[in-house]
Amino acid sequence: MTSATTVRGSDCQAIAPCWSENFREIPDLHFDIRLLISDPPHVASRLGFDCTPQGSFLGLPINGKRVSFTENVFYEFRSEKIAQVWSVIDKAAIEAQL
Amino acid sequence: MTSATTVRGSDCQAIAPCWSENFREIPDLHFDIRLLISDPPHVASRLGFDCTPQGSFLGLPINGKRVSFTENVFYEFRSEKIAQVWSVIDKAAIEAQL
Repeated sequence: MTSATTVRGSDCQAIAPCWSENFREIPDLHFDIRLLISDPPHVASRLGFDCTPQGSFLGLPINGKRVSFTENVFYEFRSEKIAQVWSVIDKAAIEAQL
Repeated sequence: MTSATTVRGSDCQAIAPCWSENFREIPDLHFDIRLLISDPPHVASRLGFDCTPQGSFLGLPINGKRVSFTENVFYEFRSEKIAQVWSVIDKAAIEAQL
């Protein structure tokens, strides 16, 4: 997971491996859905994270420290599947906690 | 403008001065609306910026260099006015261009 992710249709099989990698880097990965709005074919969500990434995360040396941050993300659906993702993670909020 | 901005109802008069400050720091400030989705009372948008901030911006030494970045932002409307804003700017994208 980079701080800004755009996944296009042809890459959408990449989403599952991407989350697998995230769970390896962040064993307690979970998030709260703080906002969820729908305007088909798009869904937008503001997600809140409170977790302890191991090693580095987004290029920052977290090393098991607990950090809280948000992600604002758009999804485009086609045929009931996510076809494209536009995400921005609040890296500056994490930097401020280190 | 910080990389992540949450403006609540009582702070919403802060939005105009905030943009004034942005125009002073970024004389050529403009943005493209890349995504705009509406689910009342919320609107979410992905904005694309291509501009030349003077001095520092988001704590980064830009000094007139041209940078491109995105912002994913949610607005909550009440009585036809913006009552709350939840924004994340892609600071990492700017860092990668310096």
